[in-house]
Amino acid sequence: MFEGFSLKTFRARIDAAKQAAANSGLDGVLITPGPDFEYLLDSKMHTHERFAGLVLAEREFVFAPGVDVADLKKSVAGELGLEIIGWNDGEDPYSFVPAGKLAVSAAMTADHLLELQSRGVEAVNATKVLAEAFVQKDEAEIRELTRAGEAIDAVHRKVPELLRAGVTEREVADKLRELILQEHVVVDFIIVGSGPHGADPHHDFSDRVIEEGDIVVVDIGGTLDSGYHSDCTRNYVVGEPSDEQQEIYHVLQKAQEAGLAFVKPGVRAGEVDKVVRDIIEEAGYGEYFIHRTGHGIGLSCHEEPFIIAGNDVVLREGMAFSIEPGVYFPGEWGARVEDIVILEADGARPVNLTPHELQRV
Amino acid sequence: MFEGFSLKTFRARIDAAKQAAANSGLDGVLITPGPDFEYLLDSKMHTHERFAGLVLAEREFVFAPGVDVADLKKSVAGELGLEIIGWNDGEDPYSFVPAGKLAVSAAMTADHLLELQSRGVEAVNATKVLAEAFVQKDEAEIRELTRAGEAIDAVHRKVPELLRAGVTEREVADKLRELILQEHVVVDFIIVGSGPHGADPHHDFSDRVIEEGDIVVVDIGGTLDSGYHSDCTRNYVVGEPSDEQQEIYHVLQKAQEAGLAFVKPGVRAGEVDKVVRDIIEEAGYGEYFIHRTGHGIGLSCHEEPFIIAGNDVVLREGMAFSIEPGVYFPGEWGARVEDIVILEADGARPVNLTPHELQRV
Repeated sequence: MFEGFSLKTFRARIDAAKQAAANSGLDGVLITPGPDFEYLLDSKMHTHERFAGLVLAEREFVFAPGVDVADLKKSVAGELGLEIIGWNDGEDPYSFVPAGKLAVSAAMTADHLLELQSRGVEAVNATKVLAEAFVQKDEAEIRELTRAGEAIDAVHRKVPELLRAGVTEREVADKLRELILQEHVVVDFIIVGSGPHGADPHHDFSDRVIEEGDIVVVDIGGTLDSGYHSDCTRNYVVGEPSDEQQEIYHVLQKAQEAGLAFVKPGVRAGEVDKVVRDIIEEAGYGEYFIHRTGHGIGLSCHEEPFIIAGNDVVLREGMAFSIEPGVYFPGEWGARVEDIVILEADGARPVNLTPHELQRV
Repeated sequence: MFEGFSLKTFRARIDAAKQAAANSGLDGVLITPGPDFEYLLDSKMHTHERFAGLVLAEREFVFAPGVDVADLKKSVAGELGLEIIGWNDGEDPYSFVPAGKLAVSAAMTADHLLELQSRGVEAVNATKVLAEAFVQKDEAEIRELTRAGEAIDAVHRKVPELLRAGVTEREVADKLRELILQEHVVVDFIIVGSGPHGADPHHDFSDRVIEEGDIVVVDIGGTLDSGYHSDCTRNYVVGEPSDEQQEIYHVLQKAQEAGLAFVKPGVRAGEVDKVVRDIIEEAGYGEYFIHRTGHGIGLSCHEEPFIIAGNDVVLREGMAFSIEPGVYFPGEWGARVEDIVILEADGARPVNLTPHELQRV
């Protein structure tokens, strides 16, 4: 078990999941390996095509391939005294799952879900049912997300040393990989989008040589030993930006700050998106802001609450999510300013604290 | 596009998928990002929680987040002239999918599947429907799987230099990671199971110090630039094994060889498992062989045909799978001998050619 978390934390999470399912009139919960499983049992178990899960219904138990049982017994599942059932190749793991109305993990794959449905399981998406219990981070999680923010900030502080005209995006990415691993146990993603590549929000990196005058979008994230993620975007310019670029960047930064300032317990996710988007639209750049404003973060990189038009989720204390507007001019340049914030009683507390302006390198 | 494959290959695969769905009385196919998507479109696109897919029904098209459309247009989907529809955050991607009976990717996640089902899609597992079209590798795939075998063999040939009493499993694994990356673009997994850790087939590696007399199970695999996987297990002993270990190892090796010799077009997957298992059972070690005999391999590490009791799939020329019996003595030691084989007209051709015996280091 990750030392920062207590067994009581996991017992409380399991009880909250059961309660949420009962409140929704369900017979139980079936959580398969993935972020929900890790949240409830602190287990990164992956069983590939072999079916495994945590069942919280009349009985509470875990079923898993026999080869994984020893590890599970040593994990939180074992320490909590949950029944752990192993099955061997050739046996039928689907028979462990009780028929009835169950909330199932969003990450469960279709092969398993279709088989369960053919056997009388009526499945609903656990994310919707359990959001209430899962989406508000507890004290230990907030500590880890804060630590993750510090970890990725430490990397961003070194970016100015790496960027200069004449190096390739890939060379910068290779160094970022090492730096991220000094602070995290896993590299989740590295985006080094220079010049026109900055206009593609899903670009990673390439052999393009960075040139004088390029704006470079650096979006990086990793996973801590506790399983919690970092994710932060900053923007750098090699030399001087044009006046137009500087003006547009100011609009972007103002929009991101307005999002940070607007966020409070009680506002809806979609309203945050609107506040941020309105500023960019009013300045005439709305058509270049082609994605949502943010996403939740925790044991997944992307999870509820999604900060997107139409999302009526009411933001509450303890939620953690990104605020990351961007503008993208195809073939020319782009920029995105991203912080992860923790929602506290009086507003958003960003965990990323490096400079938000367009940094000269 | 990976240079070894032609556009014609992908067109033929798509047509085969459509034909297979029609033969099963379905209205079409919906393939979401993952191994099936890569097989049909040579695309490693990952859109996380944003929904994307290839629809083969009355219309053929790809739908994806707007930010991924430029990449798709430059890929096989674009070169084949498929219609590519982008959607932006806030729009409804589920509306692109026609209602009706569709074969859907086994890797599609429950959040998407449940939403589609609520809108009148009747889904069946594409793996079952499309197995006929997908599971027989074409010439280009066989070339890549053979190349993958050579790549991992090159790593296994260097293992004897790494193993000795006094080093930890993790130190060996760190060096294996570098060696695998010299031959592949991704490390899929590294198992260094020394002494008692060899008795856990899902052990990866630990800080255990390797001791004189340890048998060490080394199971490693990676991905080539073409997306095809390697996977090979060999066994090493530091010093000398006991007579009993050597005797048991001979049984294991004989069982694996019997599997290789038995495999021919026309036999059933389950029969191969039985031939291998019978030899280990007759020698009195059946209870220590706790997993199936093998799994298919291609763009996934694990896929059909699974070489397992009860699998009636008839093996045919062009299939690729592992033959990997193992024996596991809890708390003591274990061993597993694994080759990937390509099924040819006259039998199994292993792609892994390093020594199968217990190698002294």
